[in-house]
Amino acid sequence: MKLASLKGPGRDGTLLVVNAGLTRAVRAEGASPTLQHALENWDQIEAKLRDVAASLEQGQERHAFDFQDALAQGKVAAPLPRAYEWLDGSAYLTHVERVRRARNDKVPESFYTDPLMYQGGAGDMMGARDPIRVLSEDWGVDLEGEVVAITGDVPMGATKDEAAACIRLVTLVNDVSFRRLIPAELAKGFGFVNGKGANALAPVALTPDELGATWKDGKVHLKLRCDVNGERLGDPNAGVDATFSLFDLIAHAAKTRELKAGTLVGTGTISNADKSTGYACLMEARLVEQVEEGAAKTPFLRFGDTVRIEMRDAKGASVFGAIEQRVERYAK
Amino acid sequence: MKLASLKGPGRDGTLLVVNAGLTRAVRAEGASPTLQHALENWDQIEAKLRDVAASLEQGQERHAFDFQDALAQGKVAAPLPRAYEWLDGSAYLTHVERVRRARNDKVPESFYTDPLMYQGGAGDMMGARDPIRVLSEDWGVDLEGEVVAITGDVPMGATKDEAAACIRLVTLVNDVSFRRLIPAELAKGFGFVNGKGANALAPVALTPDELGATWKDGKVHLKLRCDVNGERLGDPNAGVDATFSLFDLIAHAAKTRELKAGTLVGTGTISNADKSTGYACLMEARLVEQVEEGAAKTPFLRFGDTVRIEMRDAKGASVFGAIEQRVERYAK
Repeated sequence: MKLASLKGPGRDGTLLVVNAGLTRAVRAEGASPTLQHALENWDQIEAKLRDVAASLEQGQERHAFDFQDALAQGKVAAPLPRAYEWLDGSAYLTHVERVRRARNDKVPESFYTDPLMYQGGAGDMMGARDPIRVLSEDWGVDLEGEVVAITGDVPMGATKDEAAACIRLVTLVNDVSFRRLIPAELAKGFGFVNGKGANALAPVALTPDELGATWKDGKVHLKLRCDVNGERLGDPNAGVDATFSLFDLIAHAAKTRELKAGTLVGTGTISNADKSTGYACLMEARLVEQVEEGAAKTPFLRFGDTVRIEMRDAKGASVFGAIEQRVERYAK
Repeated sequence: MKLASLKGPGRDGTLLVVNAGLTRAVRAEGASPTLQHALENWDQIEAKLRDVAASLEQGQERHAFDFQDALAQGKVAAPLPRAYEWLDGSAYLTHVERVRRARNDKVPESFYTDPLMYQGGAGDMMGARDPIRVLSEDWGVDLEGEVVAITGDVPMGATKDEAAACIRLVTLVNDVSFRRLIPAELAKGFGFVNGKGANALAPVALTPDELGATWKDGKVHLKLRCDVNGERLGDPNAGVDATFSLFDLIAHAAKTRELKAGTLVGTGTISNADKSTGYACLMEARLVEQVEEGAAKTPFLRFGDTVRIEMRDAKGASVFGAIEQRVERYAK
């Protein structure tokens, strides 16, 4: 089952069921007004949504409309237009290793057993075609391509298996980062506030069964293709070199607190040890250039630049739809 | 105007208007179903809520009920039972100085001009009488008494004056902290995830005009009394020794992103340079003992321990109602 949200009328949007091919969608109002409401009442609502999905797939939803048109017209919100928690892990230690190597530092041994994770803002998730709006290009604007789980209620102290059972949906995220603001902010010791912007989700979120055999052990075994201004930045495989699975990351986040339905838990920037796969963020490309060529050459994003983040299945079909964003100057 | 929320029927609770004396309350359903909804539509709803408040004060609300009874019966939720963002500053550098001194470290010069702030979880705010539930006493359970602003929509890059105009409500928070988990987590460099638990808000949140002259320059000029097991831990004045006001802290949080209606911005643990005022968290008492007496003596909270956090006005009346919580063992 693939779910999305239209923008409006409220801030939580209007829940849509989307067909497998991402071509048709229908409002799911009869089952649930919003995705947040569905997540809070999943046991009652899931079957109804699956009925709508089956009927849509069979061409029997009279009020179905063209999903790609709605997307192109900017009418599609993030599947979850706002969420109560955004907890982002660092599952791909290749990414962390490259960051550390560039500053002649090592990755602490504990990072291989105890996930690095931060809490970010989630009250304003961008739709997949919404612009990245910033006040200044000098912030060092960067994308981060990641996989993210949307959970139901997770009990405090959940085991890995319990965490696995709480995953309701999976999608992609662009975790927008302001690289030039981060070093000074992290030096203060309390994590990110100014160093991260609003994030975008892919057009649809889907139940893990949609991923078939490519969903295994809490990892999506598919390549995440990231482009900047139409050129390939990388296509690392999200199933490769992940020290921690989404199961591990959710269990870590829930160690000392309950996570409530609609919590987003991310994998961190996808990164493979094999450099030929490229990168899912500009910083990593820059760090490798710095170490290997003496200086970073890949620029951060500037006004007018575009990013595209997408995952395709073995047949080449887009799994979640593409995140396609343009950097624009923010106006109050 | 003083606002609160009853628990249920949904996770955002039911909005209440409470009288100035905190004795009577009435459902505000006619004006807005929930506080979150009111915050999103403040320009339309504020006047209606103020009408209800005036009518309640005059004894003309037929369906008014005893607010203290509802509170004692555990029916009162946090005024905002869940929020999209919880951004907690460190306005009282005395607190930071004591932390650093205990580890023979200095406060970086930049901390006096650039606020220290972290992002925490807000999807599950405890009501003022809800228990603090933890899996283990070994976590080093501590209270942190703070003042918190609840904002409307704040534009990215808001000035201090713009930030000031976005404050809708003010209340108190108990920012529950797990002291023995924090050093290892902060050493990882990404802030708090496991080191902080769910937080509690005071029974009511109020519009700043309710504070009269004690609301000045984005600070509440009243003492915050904190008790543990019925004994005074401290009563530092929130208007004293605050390097940053709530205006500064909101502007800092909004530097690179919009804050959406219902965002919580906290002052950090209230702390005065004058040690005779005591402390608003156990850790600070322990750090001073460590420096002055060679060892920390004040214990962290254990199962069965109680905390009480309250602010009284010049006439001795409780301004927000008291946060009164007991530490209990969490059961799934």
